[in-house]
Amino acid sequence: MTVAAQSEVQVDNAEVRVTEWRLPPGAATGPHRHGMDYVIVPVADGEMTIVAPDGARAKAQLKTGKSYFRKAGVEHDVLNETATEIVFLEVELKV
Amino acid sequence: MTVAAQSEVQVDNAEVRVTEWRLPPGAATGPHRHGMDYVIVPVADGEMTIVAPDGARAKAQLKTGKSYFRKAGVEHDVLNETATEIVFLEVELKV
Repeated sequence: MTVAAQSEVQVDNAEVRVTEWRLPPGAATGPHRHGMDYVIVPVADGEMTIVAPDGARAKAQLKTGKSYFRKAGVEHDVLNETATEIVFLEVELKV
Repeated sequence: MTVAAQSEVQVDNAEVRVTEWRLPPGAATGPHRHGMDYVIVPVADGEMTIVAPDGARAKAQLKTGKSYFRKAGVEHDVLNETATEIVFLEVELKV
């Protein structure tokens, strides 16, 4: 059974939305498409499993405080197949 | 003697600039004005001393993973008067 990812919006204004995401072991975000450009800031070390719409799987390492940027349009599911909680902040750019 | 703050640009594109800031004990950024709206994501717990242009001093707590947003135009100096390194990411919005 899949555990739900937990999300908490920290900032939501005209410019940005900042959401904290927590994926306990076994959790998944569910398939989603990013409607905005975004920056990810890992708050803990971890490993994500990224599942593309065609089912292709890839592993991505999260290193605390090491950010990355993605353009709007990305589609994927994000899973935690490890024993360690995944925690990151997503900064979505509205403008 | 004031120790220099250390900065490292992680992302710099048309949309955002993401900079990691590290302030060892005794460090200061030096007085500066924010030209862009920005989000701060603390990567470690810590306490900043904020010095306004008129010299007024305030303490601000940094909690790992707890972000906040500020509009462009903020002017201040940021000091670390504690024994613990300050580490945060600054996400500046270009658009």
